[in-house]
Amino acid sequence: MSLVRVHNFSVSLDGFGTGEGLSQEAPFGHAGERLHGWMFATRWWHDMAGRRGGTRGLDDTFARQFAPEIGVEIMGAGKFGPPGWHQDPEWKGWWGPNPPFHTPVFVLTHHPRPPIEMEGGTTFHFLDASPAEALETAREAAQGKDVRIGGGPTVVRDFLAARLIDHLHIVVTPILLGRGGRLWDGLEGLESDYEVESTSSPSGVTHVMLTRR
Amino acid sequence: MSLVRVHNFSVSLDGFGTGEGLSQEAPFGHAGERLHGWMFATRWWHDMAGRRGGTRGLDDTFARQFAPEIGVEIMGAGKFGPPGWHQDPEWKGWWGPNPPFHTPVFVLTHHPRPPIEMEGGTTFHFLDASPAEALETAREAAQGKDVRIGGGPTVVRDFLAARLIDHLHIVVTPILLGRGGRLWDGLEGLESDYEVESTSSPSGVTHVMLTRR
Repeated sequence: MSLVRVHNFSVSLDGFGTGEGLSQEAPFGHAGERLHGWMFATRWWHDMAGRRGGTRGLDDTFARQFAPEIGVEIMGAGKFGPPGWHQDPEWKGWWGPNPPFHTPVFVLTHHPRPPIEMEGGTTFHFLDASPAEALETAREAAQGKDVRIGGGPTVVRDFLAARLIDHLHIVVTPILLGRGGRLWDGLEGLESDYEVESTSSPSGVTHVMLTRR
Repeated sequence: MSLVRVHNFSVSLDGFGTGEGLSQEAPFGHAGERLHGWMFATRWWHDMAGRRGGTRGLDDTFARQFAPEIGVEIMGAGKFGPPGWHQDPEWKGWWGPNPPFHTPVFVLTHHPRPPIEMEGGTTFHFLDASPAEALETAREAAQGKDVRIGGGPTVVRDFLAARLIDHLHIVVTPILLGRGGRLWDGLEGLESDYEVESTSSPSGVTHVMLTRR
């Protein structure tokens, strides 16, 4: 059976996976790039961006788990675009003509539209569905490979609450956002289904992994 | 100038420093002993309880920072006793005749009462005061030594919000409580005043230290 995985999902020390005030100019709201600075510093990120350099340590090692064995991503409407993107028929995501997914991507939205085929193997599909329904559809598209849940925090939380996630990689960044979208709300006792491991990085973040028993 | 320090303050992965439903039978509510299991396993804890054994690794090393150079503790009413303790004139805290503080302890309460002198150097004083006022009183009693803020989460948060804490040692335990008293609420941007270091322990907890710049 293919696995359902989350990778490189950053939260602040106070548990926010995104900031407040998301907009086209501020995809992460008042959080800016602070949640993901650890990732931008990695060689993996540099490679994807066609740049030289980047770190080759613990953070890079974790970051590189993002793509291998993944056949499809499921993401929330809030990751695909700024509030109101569904009113713009030309909106094709934040990522330009060649998005970094290179697989089918299912966008959960109450406003479905026809699929959009991008360069590099990414096709955006739009689904109005529950987590379990979306996962069934995504698994078919994944052709035996794993399914990545791409975020934002609401979508990861909904899939966790539905007990659909096999492996969760969270990156706790040492900042206090104070407001935004919380990852952990309403998940009391979740850890009883998982082995939990944590390892802190010299960069200052702590990688937390929950792996289903 | 003496420092204001917090040690061994446990929070769940979702940020709760205590559970819900605190009572005489359940001092930490539904959290039970899960937040502090890492500490009960240490040799430091065993020594204090007059028992043999206990671990001698990273967790023990951190735990032992609790007492050295501390001249006084400030704690909240919610740490001193279960809800309603102020209506019981005989209540002298959870800790028996010889509490583990061995210094003056200032209990913040809206219901002050005369001081209670215990064995082993602990005297409980009761203060209806703001964090800054309480700190001034406590500093006098500390005679040049440091002041420990003992919790619970509301008191630690209030002292953090008032920018009165110099060193904060938090222990993130890999459980999700879902409800209870939150440590981090309303502290946006706090990290800009501090150096933050984290180190994960083989026991599964992560020690996070905030030290004022």
